[in-house]
Amino acid sequence: MSTHKIQIVESPAVSDEAPPSPSPGGYKVFSRIVDWITNDRLQLLNITDRINEIVRKSGVKEGLVHLQSLHTTSAVFINEWQDALLHDVKNFFEQVVAGDQYYRHNDPEYSDCERKNADSHMRGMLMGQTLCLQVRNATVLLGTWQSIIFAEFDGPRSRSLAVQVSGV
Amino acid sequence: MSTHKIQIVESPAVSDEAPPSPSPGGYKVFSRIVDWITNDRLQLLNITDRINEIVRKSGVKEGLVHLQSLHTTSAVFINEWQDALLHDVKNFFEQVVAGDQYYRHNDPEYSDCERKNADSHMRGMLMGQTLCLQVRNATVLLGTWQSIIFAEFDGPRSRSLAVQVSGV
Amino acid sequence: MSTHKIQIVESPAVSDEAPPSPSPGGYKVFSRIVDWITNDRLQLLNITDRINEIVRKSGVKEGLVHLQSLHTTSAVFINEWQDALLHDVKNFFEQVVAGDQYYRHNDPEYSDCERKNADSHMRGMLMGQTLCLQVRNATVLLGTWQSIIFAEFDGPRSRSLAVQVSGV
Repeated sequence: MSTHKIQIVESPAVSDEAPPSPSPGGYKVFSRIVDWITNDRLQLLNITDRINEIVRKSGVKEGLVHLQSLHTTSAVFINEWQDALLHDVKNFFEQVVAGDQYYRHNDPEYSDCERKNADSHMRGMLMGQTLCLQVRNATVLLGTWQSIIFAEFDGPRSRSLAVQVSGV
Repeated sequence: MSTHKIQIVESPAVSDEAPPSPSPGGYKVFSRIVDWITNDRLQLLNITDRINEIVRKSGVKEGLVHLQSLHTTSAVFINEWQDALLHDVKNFFEQVVAGDQYYRHNDPEYSDCERKNADSHMRGMLMGQTLCLQVRNATVLLGTWQSIIFAEFDGPRSRSLAVQVSGV
Repeated sequence: MSTHKIQIVESPAVSDEAPPSPSPGGYKVFSRIVDWITNDRLQLLNITDRINEIVRKSGVKEGLVHLQSLHTTSAVFINEWQDALLHDVKNFFEQVVAGDQYYRHNDPEYSDCERKNADSHMRGMLMGQTLCLQVRNATVLLGTWQSIIFAEFDGPRSRSLAVQVSGV
């Protein structure tokens, strides 16, 4: 787990003053983009608190919160947030998708990608860039040991996560 | 595939008599928690019928049903429910995430986890604890050979699945 | 990446003339089934444009689009659509799930499946048959390099994808 400080910026897709669409008391959709800058090539961030803040702000009490990283070389998933386990998780990604084998995506003869990040693409695809969770009583439903984790597979980079809360 | 009997208990988040929130005819959200006790360390359960029961009870005809296991060492996914294949599926989990290698999460020097379940965490993270499916004509939309499977990766244990049906 | 032409047929679950359910201006659900025939055993299709067409037709401006392949030996996920990378992606599937090992599902003594497709089942299960994405401003929200990919793991076959757009 990185000990660097992460700079997180939230850019409202609509101004905070604007009421969520549409009718008060009925179904509404509330959207935000959360941005940050990562520090390491393979880095894990605990974004649970940020997502809960957005859910609270949305005014949705019962419904869904959908997270979507806008980058193919990243992922969003659930796991326990424990230092020893996060170390194992990083090792697992390096085992299940080898970084040091031949990839056509990294070969200038076949590809114009200069980042040599075929392994990052495979890790992002395997883990998935989307996560949908239930909102209950105006908070994200999570089990005792469940944290929402954003995985950077090709940092350092600037990253954006689209968050949409919908329901009543 | 286990031949043990599974004890499943459904605890209504709201009473069955209470109407789903909010307006009749409009968008509504219907939530339930389903509980059961597993028997084996790695066990697969077919929960398709239970989910369909909840969808029918919800009164939602068109919309989404969202399933979320509240435990990091479990998963929910789709596959064909066939004995021979389920045997292969269990073997696959043991192949893709090795159980007998060193994990820091299992090492008392780094971790206070006494269950030695790093492999269970990795399997749960890889397969995902959430599944979202379409509701059409008041039933879960599934192809002919698709069953909804709950995977226990660290049993025997008591497990809870949050089910939310939303739509019209 | 296959150079064959793919035949795609869209069969409206409801006629195009029928308004989406229910109230104009409020929450609605719009459903379609998209069909096509694949050409290769392991084949990747870029279905981004087809999904955006359906989202536009739905009249939903803010909400969710849910995709569900109705077949256990297929998957839907996100990645960059680049020839060199797609070549690597296919190799990855063949590495992470071995095709040439013993599977009980392929053994006539245990299984009546004649397709010998245990590897296809495992790949479909690992990658997942569902994908949920945000709809913003009447289009599917995707990052610059994100394409929606349908993976055939047991072709050639006729395949159906259920698409549901919901929101306001």
